[in-house]
Amino acid sequence: MNTFGNIFRLTSFGESHGLALGGVIDGCPAGIGLDMEFIRQELNRRKPGQSKVATPRKENDDVQFLSGLYEGKTTGTPIGFIIRNENQHSSDYDNMKDVYRPSHADYTYHKKYGIRDPRGGGRSSARETVARCVAGSIAKLALQPYNISIQAYTSQIGSVKIEGTYKDYDLSLTEENIVRCPDPAKAEEMERLIMEVKGQGDTIGGVITCVAKGVPAGLGEPVFGKLHAALAHAMLTINAVKGFEYGDGFNAPLYRGSERNDRFFNDGGRINTRTNHSGGIQGGISNGQDIYFRVAFKPVATILMEQETVTTAGEDTLLKARGRHDACVIPRAVPIVEAMAAMVLLDYLLLQKKKDFGSFQQFQPLINR
Amino acid sequence: MNTFGNIFRLTSFGESHGLALGGVIDGCPAGIGLDMEFIRQELNRRKPGQSKVATPRKENDDVQFLSGLYEGKTTGTPIGFIIRNENQHSSDYDNMKDVYRPSHADYTYHKKYGIRDPRGGGRSSARETVARCVAGSIAKLALQPYNISIQAYTSQIGSVKIEGTYKDYDLSLTEENIVRCPDPAKAEEMERLIMEVKGQGDTIGGVITCVAKGVPAGLGEPVFGKLHAALAHAMLTINAVKGFEYGDGFNAPLYRGSERNDRFFNDGGRINTRTNHSGGIQGGISNGQDIYFRVAFKPVATILMEQETVTTAGEDTLLKARGRHDACVIPRAVPIVEAMAAMVLLDYLLLQKKKDFGSFQQFQPLINR
Amino acid sequence: MNTFGNIFRLTSFGESHGLALGGVIDGCPAGIGLDMEFIRQELNRRKPGQSKVATPRKENDDVQFLSGLYEGKTTGTPIGFIIRNENQHSSDYDNMKDVYRPSHADYTYHKKYGIRDPRGGGRSSARETVARCVAGSIAKLALQPYNISIQAYTSQIGSVKIEGTYKDYDLSLTEENIVRCPDPAKAEEMERLIMEVKGQGDTIGGVITCVAKGVPAGLGEPVFGKLHAALAHAMLTINAVKGFEYGDGFNAPLYRGSERNDRFFNDGGRINTRTNHSGGIQGGISNGQDIYFRVAFKPVATILMEQETVTTAGEDTLLKARGRHDACVIPRAVPIVEAMAAMVLLDYLLLQKKKDFGSFQQFQPLINR
Amino acid sequence: MNTFGNIFRLTSFGESHGLALGGVIDGCPAGIGLDMEFIRQELNRRKPGQSKVATPRKENDDVQFLSGLYEGKTTGTPIGFIIRNENQHSSDYDNMKDVYRPSHADYTYHKKYGIRDPRGGGRSSARETVARCVAGSIAKLALQPYNISIQAYTSQIGSVKIEGTYKDYDLSLTEENIVRCPDPAKAEEMERLIMEVKGQGDTIGGVITCVAKGVPAGLGEPVFGKLHAALAHAMLTINAVKGFEYGDGFNAPLYRGSERNDRFFNDGGRINTRTNHSGGIQGGISNGQDIYFRVAFKPVATILMEQETVTTAGEDTLLKARGRHDACVIPRAVPIVEAMAAMVLLDYLLLQKKKDFGSFQQFQPLINR
Repeated sequence: MNTFGNIFRLTSFGESHGLALGGVIDGCPAGIGLDMEFIRQELNRRKPGQSKVATPRKENDDVQFLSGLYEGKTTGTPIGFIIRNENQHSSDYDNMKDVYRPSHADYTYHKKYGIRDPRGGGRSSARETVARCVAGSIAKLALQPYNISIQAYTSQIGSVKIEGTYKDYDLSLTEENIVRCPDPAKAEEMERLIMEVKGQGDTIGGVITCVAKGVPAGLGEPVFGKLHAALAHAMLTINAVKGFEYGDGFNAPLYRGSERNDRFFNDGGRINTRTNHSGGIQGGISNGQDIYFRVAFKPVATILMEQETVTTAGEDTLLKARGRHDACVIPRAVPIVEAMAAMVLLDYLLLQKKKDFGSFQQFQPLINR
Repeated sequence: MNTFGNIFRLTSFGESHGLALGGVIDGCPAGIGLDMEFIRQELNRRKPGQSKVATPRKENDDVQFLSGLYEGKTTGTPIGFIIRNENQHSSDYDNMKDVYRPSHADYTYHKKYGIRDPRGGGRSSARETVARCVAGSIAKLALQPYNISIQAYTSQIGSVKIEGTYKDYDLSLTEENIVRCPDPAKAEEMERLIMEVKGQGDTIGGVITCVAKGVPAGLGEPVFGKLHAALAHAMLTINAVKGFEYGDGFNAPLYRGSERNDRFFNDGGRINTRTNHSGGIQGGISNGQDIYFRVAFKPVATILMEQETVTTAGEDTLLKARGRHDACVIPRAVPIVEAMAAMVLLDYLLLQKKKDFGSFQQFQPLINR
Repeated sequence: MNTFGNIFRLTSFGESHGLALGGVIDGCPAGIGLDMEFIRQELNRRKPGQSKVATPRKENDDVQFLSGLYEGKTTGTPIGFIIRNENQHSSDYDNMKDVYRPSHADYTYHKKYGIRDPRGGGRSSARETVARCVAGSIAKLALQPYNISIQAYTSQIGSVKIEGTYKDYDLSLTEENIVRCPDPAKAEEMERLIMEVKGQGDTIGGVITCVAKGVPAGLGEPVFGKLHAALAHAMLTINAVKGFEYGDGFNAPLYRGSERNDRFFNDGGRINTRTNHSGGIQGGISNGQDIYFRVAFKPVATILMEQETVTTAGEDTLLKARGRHDACVIPRAVPIVEAMAAMVLLDYLLLQKKKDFGSFQQFQPLINR
Repeated sequence: MNTFGNIFRLTSFGESHGLALGGVIDGCPAGIGLDMEFIRQELNRRKPGQSKVATPRKENDDVQFLSGLYEGKTTGTPIGFIIRNENQHSSDYDNMKDVYRPSHADYTYHKKYGIRDPRGGGRSSARETVARCVAGSIAKLALQPYNISIQAYTSQIGSVKIEGTYKDYDLSLTEENIVRCPDPAKAEEMERLIMEVKGQGDTIGGVITCVAKGVPAGLGEPVFGKLHAALAHAMLTINAVKGFEYGDGFNAPLYRGSERNDRFFNDGGRINTRTNHSGGIQGGISNGQDIYFRVAFKPVATILMEQETVTTAGEDTLLKARGRHDACVIPRAVPIVEAMAAMVLLDYLLLQKKKDFGSFQQFQPLINR
């Protein structure tokens, strides 16, 4: 269950305080040029210490590829990679060794595996997502020739949220500020809120919106592999995520069918829809319109305030976390959301290839004749 | 991609207007007594024509089991079953034959498979969910000895929603009214709203809340098989679903970590939490508290009003659906939500069994000694 | 574990003495014309009672397709099908009810599932293979446009075996005799041997050779999905099979590398090999040469002679089977071997499609632009 | 397709001439003590340069575990590991850069992936099996508490084969000689044969027999996950393997059912069988008797003799391999066969745990009550 995907698959490993994290990417098409600078930039968008709203913890997150490449291109064989852990202040965790941190996974991991690994979050740490960003950046590179682009941004921090839809913003502004919000004024408000919360040793959550453009019609594998179900699954595997909605989402009930059906019309020779309340997916299959969805994050559980809890022996105690933590992970989670979306879309593109009977008939036998 | 689950697996087949729908349940433990009356009741909760708020279409939904049973108990071999389609008014669909219905899957199925099957929704029809209710009812029976119970209910229709949380209601009242809402006053309001919308030939969506009690701690397979990710995936495969949230969900960002962490305390000798904002799952693993989540449904796409659309040839046209459709599927979707939840929980219980090292060591070799 | 395949997948169900057997075929490309006469012929090659060397048990094996077809073509959605059981002489099994038949699966099924279903072989009966022949015949139809053909034949019954390799025979003669051996003289010998064994109430095994022609180079998914490993797996799932070899097989050790390497040469402009000791697969990937392999079958366990055994209570007893059994299943297993081979080859063809970067780049986006 | 197993799963990566090989083991039960000395010994049995019959190539094969362990025990989270490549004489391969080596995977990999990686065998090199030995040794450690032991040995080199069955030998003698044959006299003969072949620059194949003792009845997942089918699949994924048989195997057809059925009898209060022609598996499920099977290896393709072949451009040429190769891989393949068998048996033990209804009912809810 540490493998994600059907054809393009990431198997990840590693804990926050072990020697290294890493993964194996299997099923990547051969011949993809790996732009190392691009991959590094993607990892930098996720990495700790990148701005004042992020944890001051420093990690270089240098990825080392061990296999699956030849002369800078993928060979079709599995791509093994590792990221060494540095800067492991395990001592930060000394006072938590025998304590279950509230709303953390300490208790449930202990119950599940019968083992208590007290070094940070272990496998449940969000540090694990670094492997997803490696695989996601490769997926993005593989999607580039199809002009499929994926852009996520912060749409809400605490109760500060931006108005309207993704169409109301210039998404290229997203990376212009440290909270990754395309509305500069709201971005400032969000930043102020995070700094305030941080000053209190507290934490705050938010919402990330993600848009995928250029996705061809036909991706999705009903009935149990509907495209939005795969996206929901992917997003809910990200640490601290509590909800997913696409298209009209939780607002959908507020309208009548007659108000929200996406009417088709002949748009100068091609079929188009007047609206896109469906979020680019109908019946679990992409329809060629933009795909957009929203992902809700809770405030992270580690707060630098004293909390009631129990020891592993079940005794009441008080815990005050030390260490260098994020007051708000949303800005750093933006590239993670994109990475998971990219993996899903590439995987479903590859799945569709083998189903498309048109190209099936045209499949070039590779036989030596 | 018509197979759901890891150990307990449903493979389903069938279209709304074919000879039969059905499925194969693989991996069901041997020795489960199949209470046929219970299964029939579960199917009746889903079936059309059950009340005035549902479609007047009549389907008996009699399930026939073809294998995997001996003297009323499961044998551990695959359980094949079929439900014959009756009452197929394909003629209802004559005027839609060459038209893409707005916000339906007609267009995307055609694009994906290159085939246009104009008989009703075909595979994309919610009729497919009858197979899920069969499998879900068997999963519920398998979960009974563990005292795991699953209860869903209608919490919102249009803008009519009930207040508070599931703890504020007597959920046994849910089946007392035709909208399946545990608040009798709200239920009446919801019923009136549906009848009004129905009278207009329009449709309306809603929200279903689901609660699972008695789930032991330890279920969930991080990092890509987190329990809530599996539940999200399951729910998003249900027709018309647009969103999923668990625990605090989309409200989580509105609070600080210090306000919402679930503090542990020694509760008379056992570990308990003061609150359950986590929704019974931490780090992707159940913690023994109630699991609860909400599922948003859009209004169904088929409205009995004239709509702009295009023909399969791309020409503009007007479509007015005939036929017998649901103005609101929420009441009938309540057992479907439960069925999917039951399948996920049984599957993850079986997955955990093989991981639990305690029972691993006690595993009774079956050898003839 | 009743599902076979990666993309083209058969999920089968049913016992020898239940209401029906059947299956669900998922992942079949859309647009394949199902030639019902061809499917019927394929099932007739497998069916009991077809000749004097087969069991006199009569089963019509009429397959009924329940979904996944429209106007005679596959739609890309799952194909559900059933074959009703008729002529179930359960009374034949009355004297075996509380007895473990030697070398049957009675004992192991009981140990595994804790359930004793005494009606014939239940799920372990070779009757289950009828579903494979349905799926295999559809796979053959899907492979036809690629000019991939699969032909199996009886190459050994008891100690009567044919000389040389498949190239020494006109394989079109295979269906000319009831043992399905392309050497008419040996076929007569084999037939005599089977009739002799049958007269004694005994049983005899044999070997089936299978050849696939026209398979393009490039199929196979190293390192754990090597093409020959998939074929071995497929063959070993057939009842009574004890061994698999491809290319030189168990004779390979008798030669030196210098004697058996398949040397490449320029054959009038295209690359060819002087020999094909590899059996058409190198490094787990097809090389465009004929694929051939051999499958060993033990004598079936049900003999009409008295045998020592025990009751389910562990008491010594004597058992003499009644009923209508095959003295030799090899002739009827020939189409089963072909069916499994066809499923594997189609599945791997579909897997390769999504890996082939050439066609990957040329993939026609289905988007409506 | 670089992932093996259902519950206990190895995902492997790496090429013969890259930076490192490695893998991720997922689904390993928590709490297994990893005896590093045992793992090292197992790797030493496989490693090159271990004796005069093996390649003189030296590789230390030091495995580094990166995750999934705490205080020497498995934690239940994925175990990532790497083995650095040293001693890479890529220059050995300079003269093969543009040439397809006969009976190697050069040609098929090129056809499949469209990429020519000329450094040694790349992913198709048997060097890849080092990751299997790591996972296999961990599987052996997990099987120890069940008293399941796995022992393979060389039973044939060229035409030199040992008589009788595994019961005729003291298998503890296997590791006493460099060919790993429990018959000391035959071992000498085999060694002489290998040295002779080696002196000629040629290669030779053989057969490995493997015996698993202590496997409880009930393992195996019919109909497509039969235990012997899983073993066959596993063995056929090993480089140079051409055949698999279990129990009577290819000799089964030579006998009548009456001669070879394994009769049950009451053996002092427990059920036993008079013989074990079934090889410990009936109907795809283990029956508690010894499991034994045989695996055929061809002579490896790399010979130090001049051979006809073609360039990648299709031109006829002559190739004489240089480098340090094995004249016979059988002795080094013995631990690989054991490793694959151990992985299959552990995986199926874990699969059975979740099916066993007895322990299912006794499953200890982990809930905090």
